[in-house]
Amino acid sequence: MKAQKYLDILREIKDVAFATVDENGKPQVRIIDVMIVENEKLYFCTARGKAFYQQLIQNENVAITGMNQAFQMIRLNGVIYRLSQQKEWIDRIFKENPSMNHVYPGESRYILEAFCIEQGEGEFFDLGKEPIVIESFILGNEDYQQKGFIINEDCIHCGKCERICPQQCIKDFVISQTHCLHCGLCYEECPVKAIVKRGG
Amino acid sequence: MKAQKYLDILREIKDVAFATVDENGKPQVRIIDVMIVENEKLYFCTARGKAFYQQLIQNENVAITGMNQAFQMIRLNGVIYRLSQQKEWIDRIFKENPSMNHVYPGESRYILEAFCIEQGEGEFFDLGKEPIVIESFILGNEDYQQKGFIINEDCIHCGKCERICPQQCIKDFVISQTHCLHCGLCYEECPVKAIVKRGG
Repeated sequence: MKAQKYLDILREIKDVAFATVDENGKPQVRIIDVMIVENEKLYFCTARGKAFYQQLIQNENVAITGMNQAFQMIRLNGVIYRLSQQKEWIDRIFKENPSMNHVYPGESRYILEAFCIEQGEGEFFDLGKEPIVIESFILGNEDYQQKGFIINEDCIHCGKCERICPQQCIKDFVISQTHCLHCGLCYEECPVKAIVKRGG
Repeated sequence: MKAQKYLDILREIKDVAFATVDENGKPQVRIIDVMIVENEKLYFCTARGKAFYQQLIQNENVAITGMNQAFQMIRLNGVIYRLSQQKEWIDRIFKENPSMNHVYPGESRYILEAFCIEQGEGEFFDLGKEPIVIESFILGNEDYQQKGFIINEDCIHCGKCERICPQQCIKDFVISQTHCLHCGLCYEECPVKAIVKRGG
């Protein structure tokens, strides 16, 4: 249940940014409420009249981000699906988020449809700590694409990268992946190109 | 200078969500600082090592959103360009945002590059007001694509839409665009299909 704690942070933030790709291939983003998180799944809803709804129906990929007051940021790249048993899910969402009754009183709630994310990959950034801390997590069986940089066997141990790193997160010719900002300064400055991108 | 006040809200929020489309056509989003707004332009920066930077170089379209404590939300769909005179812009950004020196001390700041948005279209949602208020704005000479719904001449004046609107924003067979949630309930329920999408 490692991912649950990151979803819990998104639920606490509640108003998070949901990005989609529209019919023209352009990015779109808006603030959406995280309605329920449980069992490493995230639930949200939107109204059938909205462009966001059309984008979800046409393209299952979403990217979510939010940051809390402690400067902890979550990023989640996930795959959505429309839930079956819509009425039950909308009723449950309204029960757990009673302020929704204010926006969609009475039966008008059923213009909303509920969606779930149970597969995805995410990152947690604690920007309030010094040095910053980065962790990654997985929902479902999604593969995790590693980011950032590593130092390979071409390293000549000159120490330049250690001196220039803005976060001072290189020690003994190893980049601390937990603290790396992914800024790329070491990658650019290494005199023998011994710093390469991970994953990719 | 109508758009300036909306950009000022984004600058006050400061940590806003920037969405892009990656090389696989998938949405990506992360929290980025709004560094400067002036003359209806918005300035931000990122490091050359980051995936965000690569996405900006490959695709000029970004979507931005943020919400403040008063539940005022801004959405901005814009086109970015990389500024010339990078050193001057990065120095100015660090002068106006001195906490950046903490993350990128000394010369390491020049791993960052500065970008500007001066064309785009946006929406302002005041979700803290009752009824909610929606306004749209334009940066530069971008065309504005209208959203939401209108009632056309096929209307039989049955009054069903007025009764079911969750925001009670239909009066005398006209939808108040300033207060409409774009939920689509009237569009779905009109017995003669006299409610149609705007823009299209």
